[in-house]
Amino acid sequence: MGARGVFITIEGADGCGKSTQAALLEARLVACGLEVVRLREPGGTAISEKVRALLLDPANAEMSPECELLLYEASRAQLTRQVIEPALARGAVVLCDRYYDSTYAYQAGGRGLDETLVRQSNVLGSCGRVPDRTLVLDLDPATAFARATSGGADRMEAEGLAFQRRVRAAYLRLAAEEPARVRVVDASGEKDEVLGRLLAACADLWDLRG
Amino acid sequence: MGARGVFITIEGADGCGKSTQAALLEARLVACGLEVVRLREPGGTAISEKVRALLLDPANAEMSPECELLLYEASRAQLTRQVIEPALARGAVVLCDRYYDSTYAYQAGGRGLDETLVRQSNVLGSCGRVPDRTLVLDLDPATAFARATSGGADRMEAEGLAFQRRVRAAYLRLAAEEPARVRVVDASGEKDEVLGRLLAACADLWDLRG
Repeated sequence: MGARGVFITIEGADGCGKSTQAALLEARLVACGLEVVRLREPGGTAISEKVRALLLDPANAEMSPECELLLYEASRAQLTRQVIEPALARGAVVLCDRYYDSTYAYQAGGRGLDETLVRQSNVLGSCGRVPDRTLVLDLDPATAFARATSGGADRMEAEGLAFQRRVRAAYLRLAAEEPARVRVVDASGEKDEVLGRLLAACADLWDLRG
Repeated sequence: MGARGVFITIEGADGCGKSTQAALLEARLVACGLEVVRLREPGGTAISEKVRALLLDPANAEMSPECELLLYEASRAQLTRQVIEPALARGAVVLCDRYYDSTYAYQAGGRGLDETLVRQSNVLGSCGRVPDRTLVLDLDPATAFARATSGGADRMEAEGLAFQRRVRAAYLRLAAEEPARVRVVDASGEKDEVLGRLLAACADLWDLRG
């Protein structure tokens, strides 16, 4: 046993800078001599990528909300068992761009699926695994939306600004419910400023590594 | 509303004669002037067939049990919303070769996945829909196993005879738990004898149609 990694998830609306910040955070942690496994949901294993392809294929537009939810969870379960758990067991830092809080924010918050149903599904898909820290990059929805759609809107982004506002409200609810895990970080300003805020919001975690 | 169809599922081990009997039952009901929608799980919609392909592809051998479970449920949710519910709403008989009791019998019974987890997943995947009648074709596991493997064993059948015995035991538990819905039918003997038993085991349902 002994080794026990740290599981950090990065959340927020499309356009809030998640991918950029995840890369910067990874570089900083690697520079500190840590092993970092950076992942992106949905995906991250051969099977999860096949499920991702089903989810994002416009040919599957008739997909029911329940099917979509369960496909996200299936992809997550595979990633959790095949990659996240082994990485944590060997003491690595797992940095995951989106995890089950995205499902809550988008499916329950954005689309209005039943909250209990989404929460139960999240427990199944994560195989009961809870992140040590969840960093929510928070940006004014109008700004995030404009950034996210500047390169053409994908299926999710096409839902519009009102949808993004509901997503943000859901993230803020999670932060209020689980303040020890979920931290809201201001995503406005220069990249380095935001990175500094992210590092501050997870600095206490390294003590956990004993 | 008015129209309200009848939802019948056919269950049992591989090799018990489910497909043959489903076809015979369909012909008999059609001859009575009923609209019958015959389905097979996993599958039955374009999206569900894509998920089925993932489930049955030997290239995906590293699939975790949780991912497999959730893929079955995703495929089921799509079938339920896109085909089963509309068919029932217009008053058709839906005849489904396997539904959520298979997931219980195979994943919880056969593979030993946590029962509560499987039951919760089944509620999600079926969108809360419960069959009006579930006919379990029951055959001595050694006989069913020999029949199922005579043409070469697929991934599920390769689990062996002990596995098939656990599957059968799980089906019998369901019948004991929900005697009004789940009926065990002797699948030995001639095809027409078995069909006669199946018809007897669902004859009361037609009164429901008002």
